[in-house]
Amino acid sequence: MKKYTEMSKDELREEFERLDKEYKKYSYNPLNLNMARGKPSPAQLDLSMEMMDVLSSKADLKCEDGTDCRNYGILTGIPEAKELFADVMEVNPDNMIIFGNSSLNVMFDCIAHSYSHGVMGSTPWCKLPKVKWLCVVPGYDRHFAITEYFGFEMINVPMLPTGPDMDMVEKLVSEDDAIKGIWCVPKYSNPTGNSYSDETVRRFARLKPAAADFRIYWDNAYTIHHLYDHNQDHLIEILAECKRAGNPDLVYKFASTSKVSFPGSGIAMLAASHNNLADINKQMTIQTIGHDKVNQLRHVRFFKDIHGVVEHMRLHADIIRPKFEAVEEILEQELGELGIGTWTKPNGGYFISFDSLPGCAKAIVSDAKKAGVQLTKAGATFPYGKDPQDSNIRIAPTYPSEEEIRAAMKLFTLCVKRASVRKLLETAE
Amino acid sequence: MKKYTEMSKDELREEFERLDKEYKKYSYNPLNLNMARGKPSPAQLDLSMEMMDVLSSKADLKCEDGTDCRNYGILTGIPEAKELFADVMEVNPDNMIIFGNSSLNVMFDCIAHSYSHGVMGSTPWCKLPKVKWLCVVPGYDRHFAITEYFGFEMINVPMLPTGPDMDMVEKLVSEDDAIKGIWCVPKYSNPTGNSYSDETVRRFARLKPAAADFRIYWDNAYTIHHLYDHNQDHLIEILAECKRAGNPDLVYKFASTSKVSFPGSGIAMLAASHNNLADINKQMTIQTIGHDKVNQLRHVRFFKDIHGVVEHMRLHADIIRPKFEAVEEILEQELGELGIGTWTKPNGGYFISFDSLPGCAKAIVSDAKKAGVQLTKAGATFPYGKDPQDSNIRIAPTYPSEEEIRAAMKLFTLCVKRASVRKLLETAE
Repeated sequence: MKKYTEMSKDELREEFERLDKEYKKYSYNPLNLNMARGKPSPAQLDLSMEMMDVLSSKADLKCEDGTDCRNYGILTGIPEAKELFADVMEVNPDNMIIFGNSSLNVMFDCIAHSYSHGVMGSTPWCKLPKVKWLCVVPGYDRHFAITEYFGFEMINVPMLPTGPDMDMVEKLVSEDDAIKGIWCVPKYSNPTGNSYSDETVRRFARLKPAAADFRIYWDNAYTIHHLYDHNQDHLIEILAECKRAGNPDLVYKFASTSKVSFPGSGIAMLAASHNNLADINKQMTIQTIGHDKVNQLRHVRFFKDIHGVVEHMRLHADIIRPKFEAVEEILEQELGELGIGTWTKPNGGYFISFDSLPGCAKAIVSDAKKAGVQLTKAGATFPYGKDPQDSNIRIAPTYPSEEEIRAAMKLFTLCVKRASVRKLLETAE
Repeated sequence: MKKYTEMSKDELREEFERLDKEYKKYSYNPLNLNMARGKPSPAQLDLSMEMMDVLSSKADLKCEDGTDCRNYGILTGIPEAKELFADVMEVNPDNMIIFGNSSLNVMFDCIAHSYSHGVMGSTPWCKLPKVKWLCVVPGYDRHFAITEYFGFEMINVPMLPTGPDMDMVEKLVSEDDAIKGIWCVPKYSNPTGNSYSDETVRRFARLKPAAADFRIYWDNAYTIHHLYDHNQDHLIEILAECKRAGNPDLVYKFASTSKVSFPGSGIAMLAASHNNLADINKQMTIQTIGHDKVNQLRHVRFFKDIHGVVEHMRLHADIIRPKFEAVEEILEQELGELGIGTWTKPNGGYFISFDSLPGCAKAIVSDAKKAGVQLTKAGATFPYGKDPQDSNIRIAPTYPSEEEIRAAMKLFTLCVKRASVRKLLETAE
């Protein structure tokens, strides 16, 4: 098929009529599918159902150090949970805190703590005239919502195939002490699905920020969320690399089991240097008597060890891999030759990122919605919901069935084609 | 026996020698008991063990509205949890949010939110030159720790048999707009165990604070924690009373199941006006995707309804009532006639409050510790850990066995007698 970008005005007009006719069919028979958020499917949740049985009424709920997990006590997590999830996070158990059910909440609290009380003794950010934050784009909307909520000025840093544009990051953080942090999803990034290169991680660890209270918010949300058994991305571990580089306090590393066991009923965790942990503990001691230790114990008794987690994640992969491949197959089939879009082919994570011709994303998402497929809002992958190119769309293939994915992607690609032809017609002579 | 306060110096000296000899016996054979915190005993925790079985791997984890509790979704709590705990809190389900495992964390977050973003559009407290807070004393150390952490100036308000000194509360809040809140434990108060009178609740609801962003922090931690089946304290419901008084937004009401099911693995909740809830939701939407719905469902399926909760609390009462009665019995037996201490006789809650002669509390707690009984730190029931009279001691009888309680209280009363005689000797002519 001829590339749309090489078609004459007449050819485009003809193509539009054909596409529009096809699109109109959906108005009589709309789909009803939601691909907006990165939610596990029911089949994935079923994988963890035996976790419901590991702690019965007959079970001994004492953890390794003898603490009764049913009662008050232990602020930073039971020892066996630290040990297991230290393996998941590739850090020392001593560098970990196990939290409640939401790593987003942990990130929010880190920022709220810095806002009201500063970072390791620095001036509280609420007392500063201005706080700025670097946002790798496209990125995770809920990250950007936190920094927007606290009124920080968000600065876009483009995501390259190797990770964030490090020339830009280095320049900005070394020159401006109002910049206090950066949002990173280093592995199987949300939404692009690609991972930071070794060189990028090394440059992060060697940053020389003008602000002593600058921190890298390293959201390792997809650290064990591979799609393939061999074709796996691997990152240099950031805490160790920061330590080697003489910057041990530079990073907070986050993870959770939200997409391992149950979203909302899992366990969140943070890894950081001892100095950072002591600082965070100062607040946590005031904020709570402790997190849900019974749920920590439930997770440890279910997974047993890191091998158990890895085997469990292979079962997740078996369920979602065909869905990712269906998305890629249909994108290739329908759009491969048309020159009107590019997309990522990740080895893991929860998303595929699609870039349309500039100025088409909103129209595509809106058209798909009218025909019954809800996608992540166009612009959501950028701070303030503003995609300057209006071209990025996040595709979340995990929740619907493969059959639904195929139906949804047929419609999606139709919407892409129709919106692209319309845009090209606007600009054609 | 003669009152110590009426003894001559010689009689006191003789009595001290006798007591000291008895006390020294403990140095050869110290006890090893902890009465420092309000912790349920293992027998109490056993009462909820069947909760571990109500959600098995075969269970349907959909809640009433069809939501799969295992997945993302529902920010403010599943409908059946709201309904059940609205009955516990004596409010409308619409006025509730169900949170994670810690009501302390909810209170902390309410203050953190007010600090960074203000209350319903008011100036954020971090932008004010000074914030002050009323603290009913004696009170709960973890409350005071939060307001100290945020640097608020804490003002002591004496607890009377009817509740806080309302003349003082009314005068202070109406005159000073730097006063933004008050800590209250209205029912079976921590540590006095007494409850606010109807008149006190009515006066709270009718406060006319100078600050529009003043809120009553109504920590109803012991709302269903009765010791007796008929001899129960009952309070006028504060949300309804505030509404009737034309002050619907004046109060945040907190509760949790920490001492109903499992401390640390229970459910926390907040009730407030729709205006307040909307304000709190603004932050919660940014902070988290939702709380642990599986645990909410587990609680509802276990308790079924408010009658189930009430019956469950009777079982708790059966376990702890003899312990409270043992404390009271030994206090009466050992100190009843000596005029060196007064104590409360609550109908519920987790504490008995003891007041020694002025200047004795630190010595008593320290002496008891040396002999192997750990009590709540003297002064802990006051802001900044400073009891101006050095006389209040919080007794927490729930965790040890009745036998241990009796042993600990024997030692405690000995320490009270010995410290009192020593103090009286100091001041005797």
